[in-house]
Amino acid sequence: MARLQAEEETQKAFGWAAIDSSGILSPFHFTRRVNGDNDITIKILFCGICHSDLHIARNDFGISTYPAVPGHEIVGVVTQVGKEVDKFKVGDRAGVGCLIGSCGKCENCQDDMESYCSKPKYTNTIFDDGGARTYGGYSDIYVVNEHFAIRIPDNLSLDGGAPLLCAGITVFSPMKYFGLDRAGMHVGVVGLGGLGHLAVKFAKAFGMKVTVISTSPSKQSEATQQLGADSFIFSHDSKQMETAVGTMNGIIDTVSAVHPLKPLLDLLKTKGKLIMVGAQSLEKPLEVPAMPLLGRKLVSGSMAGGIKETQEMIDFAAKHSIAADVEVIPMDYVNKAMDRLAEGDVRYRFVIDIANTLLT
Amino acid sequence: MARLQAEEETQKAFGWAAIDSSGILSPFHFTRRVNGDNDITIKILFCGICHSDLHIARNDFGISTYPAVPGHEIVGVVTQVGKEVDKFKVGDRAGVGCLIGSCGKCENCQDDMESYCSKPKYTNTIFDDGGARTYGGYSDIYVVNEHFAIRIPDNLSLDGGAPLLCAGITVFSPMKYFGLDRAGMHVGVVGLGGLGHLAVKFAKAFGMKVTVISTSPSKQSEATQQLGADSFIFSHDSKQMETAVGTMNGIIDTVSAVHPLKPLLDLLKTKGKLIMVGAQSLEKPLEVPAMPLLGRKLVSGSMAGGIKETQEMIDFAAKHSIAADVEVIPMDYVNKAMDRLAEGDVRYRFVIDIANTLLT
Repeated sequence: MARLQAEEETQKAFGWAAIDSSGILSPFHFTRRVNGDNDITIKILFCGICHSDLHIARNDFGISTYPAVPGHEIVGVVTQVGKEVDKFKVGDRAGVGCLIGSCGKCENCQDDMESYCSKPKYTNTIFDDGGARTYGGYSDIYVVNEHFAIRIPDNLSLDGGAPLLCAGITVFSPMKYFGLDRAGMHVGVVGLGGLGHLAVKFAKAFGMKVTVISTSPSKQSEATQQLGADSFIFSHDSKQMETAVGTMNGIIDTVSAVHPLKPLLDLLKTKGKLIMVGAQSLEKPLEVPAMPLLGRKLVSGSMAGGIKETQEMIDFAAKHSIAADVEVIPMDYVNKAMDRLAEGDVRYRFVIDIANTLLT
Repeated sequence: MARLQAEEETQKAFGWAAIDSSGILSPFHFTRRVNGDNDITIKILFCGICHSDLHIARNDFGISTYPAVPGHEIVGVVTQVGKEVDKFKVGDRAGVGCLIGSCGKCENCQDDMESYCSKPKYTNTIFDDGGARTYGGYSDIYVVNEHFAIRIPDNLSLDGGAPLLCAGITVFSPMKYFGLDRAGMHVGVVGLGGLGHLAVKFAKAFGMKVTVISTSPSKQSEATQQLGADSFIFSHDSKQMETAVGTMNGIIDTVSAVHPLKPLLDLLKTKGKLIMVGAQSLEKPLEVPAMPLLGRKLVSGSMAGGIKETQEMIDFAAKHSIAADVEVIPMDYVNKAMDRLAEGDVRYRFVIDIANTLLT
């Protein structure tokens, strides 16, 4: 009976899943829970491809379970609301980021920092969570407790807006928390990918001076002309680096490959902040020289923000016409897109046109 | 004439100096500048022995010049004031910490953070600073610009107060800057030496819960009974460490020997702060695991504070009856004291009774 009951409480869904660590995605029929009293159901229109989707599909973290439907940069339209729902009505635009659940009771949850809850429930979890595993947004619908859904303003583009829900909040949240959001400050952005290009846009909207720091000199024109950065440093050019020593209030470091931190710490003023959002190797420790720390410089990192802050970020983005620069792709291009993503060949985010190209 | 002029502008002084990297101190006659319009002259009563005095005497940093008179935890009484001086009058108690000069113009100086000025002038400098080298407080008098002198309240003990001028401000300043000064917070103090025991006292005065973390289980009773810490963790006991995981808002780490940081980061809550004031090896980088940083934990460090904050610290200490626990020694015990300091055999600071034991 229990099994029958469980079957009765689900609804059909369809998406694309990786079925093993080859990471190759293919069409996949599955079920989601029916819409509960506090839930909304979203018909997915667009879903961004985050770099972690690639890791999950290919089991790069060694903890994936299959079939795995990636996707946690979801935007769409509400098709159903539970009777207790008051934040949405049918027809509203809604989004879902990395997180769809947390304990609600711990200090972090009480502090609107659900993303730091020790019992988080992820949108495209790679864990079996007591039998209630989740499937991500490379799919037709999503059912989510309204608390974890984000209102998407009408003037925010849906395709360029989708990546804000992970990449956007991942840079916005630490910029706010560490006070790197004040007009007149000078911020460095290391790496010009999905996260980096949004960090540049937010920093400019905050009224900051922005310097992009990159190992690819070819990105100079993108940085300064296309994205509006004030300056560009080719990090392998010691003269360019030397010129900028001691000039920055903070650095948002989006690069996940291991790289030396001392040259970056040297760019900071006293009290400067080096914020790692790219999460260098989790196995090998970062090598942090002690001397710059005595200059009251700090090294920290961050994950995506809580739900309240994600809503603030989306509203800020809409107000300031900030969206990701995206390459919209059809669903059946996803495997090619994953290959290109692995090679860094995207400016700056792939977004899947779910509504028009996910064909059952 | 220039040479004659310089000689005319000096006055005789007497102290103890190391004359080579043996570090052995012996009586030494030298000169100080005459009291200028903005200067005060202090008759030194007590001078604390900081661990860096030992490094300077023995050339552990490889940059000492000799003869070197150590000492930058100076308290005494004002014997002369320049005509522009308005902060002191003859007979006042005054102190001098690490710093006696800075450029006065840079962002850090303007921000009352003279200790982070790129052109600092240290009390017992080990550099020849354009011919104007300084000699420290193991001596009879000190001449200093009044801006860099600290008023010593009448109710602060002079011997126990002296170490506040370096050890005290070195822990007080980062506790203030990083917000680790709020009642109800839980702070860890790693290492129970000159800095650590003052961190415990300040933290208790702030109304915080304090846990001392040490590799010496024998320090438990000192920590909890003598200094008033709420609890004690023997850091090699994994069960004790495990019990405290995720409980601390911050940690003041006073240990200069290289030690693993991950166990300390694990003790922090989300947004917790690990502040290094002991300055681990300056040559070998700190190894900082990346994962805890993603929990928005930060690693930073600090030097002594600016003059304004040093005055605030001294006033706070006087108000809350905070002073260092000291072993007062005569001048001619200094070499033995240095040996004991090198072995960590002091509870918790040696202070030289200059007034009564520095005999010409």
